[in-house]
Amino acid sequence: MSEDHLEEAVSEPAAEEEVDPLAAVTRERDDYLDALQRLKAEFDNYRKRVARDQHELAARASERLVKELVPVLDDLERALEAAAQHEEAKLEEGVGLVHRSLAELLAREGVAEIPTDGKFDPHVQEALLAQPSEQEEGTVIQVLQKGYLLGDRVLRPARVVVSAGPEQRG
Amino acid sequence: MSEDHLEEAVSEPAAEEEVDPLAAVTRERDDYLDALQRLKAEFDNYRKRVARDQHELAARASERLVKELVPVLDDLERALEAAAQHEEAKLEEGVGLVHRSLAELLAREGVAEIPTDGKFDPHVQEALLAQPSEQEEGTVIQVLQKGYLLGDRVLRPARVVVSAGPEQRG
Repeated sequence: MSEDHLEEAVSEPAAEEEVDPLAAVTRERDDYLDALQRLKAEFDNYRKRVARDQHELAARASERLVKELVPVLDDLERALEAAAQHEEAKLEEGVGLVHRSLAELLAREGVAEIPTDGKFDPHVQEALLAQPSEQEEGTVIQVLQKGYLLGDRVLRPARVVVSAGPEQRG
Repeated sequence: MSEDHLEEAVSEPAAEEEVDPLAAVTRERDDYLDALQRLKAEFDNYRKRVARDQHELAARASERLVKELVPVLDDLERALEAAAQHEEAKLEEGVGLVHRSLAELLAREGVAEIPTDGKFDPHVQEALLAQPSEQEEGTVIQVLQKGYLLGDRVLRPARVVVSAGPEQRG
């Protein structure tokens, strides 16, 4: 580098090509530090916003469901009034209506009954008892409590009685 | 700093106190650039994780509620069985139980009935009708449908009849 060029750079410190390596590196260092500090602040704000949002999100998810349960409560109250007035037919009808509403609501949410026909399945069923029966060993022969899935997760296993096979005759 | 110390530093370039300003600033610049790149990568990963989490969170929030509704459905089914067998007392008892369970579940979620005693409140009530009455004008005189709040949000306004004041006699 000629002496001339060096002088030019010194007389024009804002020129694009910096010739003083220390000044150039110092500027880069300051730029990076500045960017680093701004990114840190942005990250912090983002984290805070996420914490607030997640709270909101959980609240909204249950709000939607809770809102759908209000009419079910209405139907139940009407059924109770019918019961108080001994209007049995109306009471039965009301209970049927409430059951249908709730079952449909749960189905919309992705809840499904666990099937219990056929072989015992330990992933989704719980065997409370094994009883001798004409059915093949390991077959579900009675459902004590229905089980439910939500998507592929078990909300509650079906509680069943399984066949221990034909009774042994000494 | 003595000449001895200076020599020591020069012969040990990795020493904590760097004497070449260009080398020192270059190292700082590289450190900041490195930190900046790592923070960027961390921020990106965080953003991706948040997107995944939010989906999960909403699903979990409804899963919790849905799970609590399963025993309510059981009680309803038992009530329906009682109805099918014309066990009226058992049916009534069952409906009372279901109502209590659901009302308690909603209360735990923060749902509260909108009060309807006293003055009509347009923020939480909807007047479907105004009727002449001995009650002061603007007083709620009948509730046609209960209203509910979730926290301070109106899930459903109470639908009411308000008093139009004493009947005008020409």
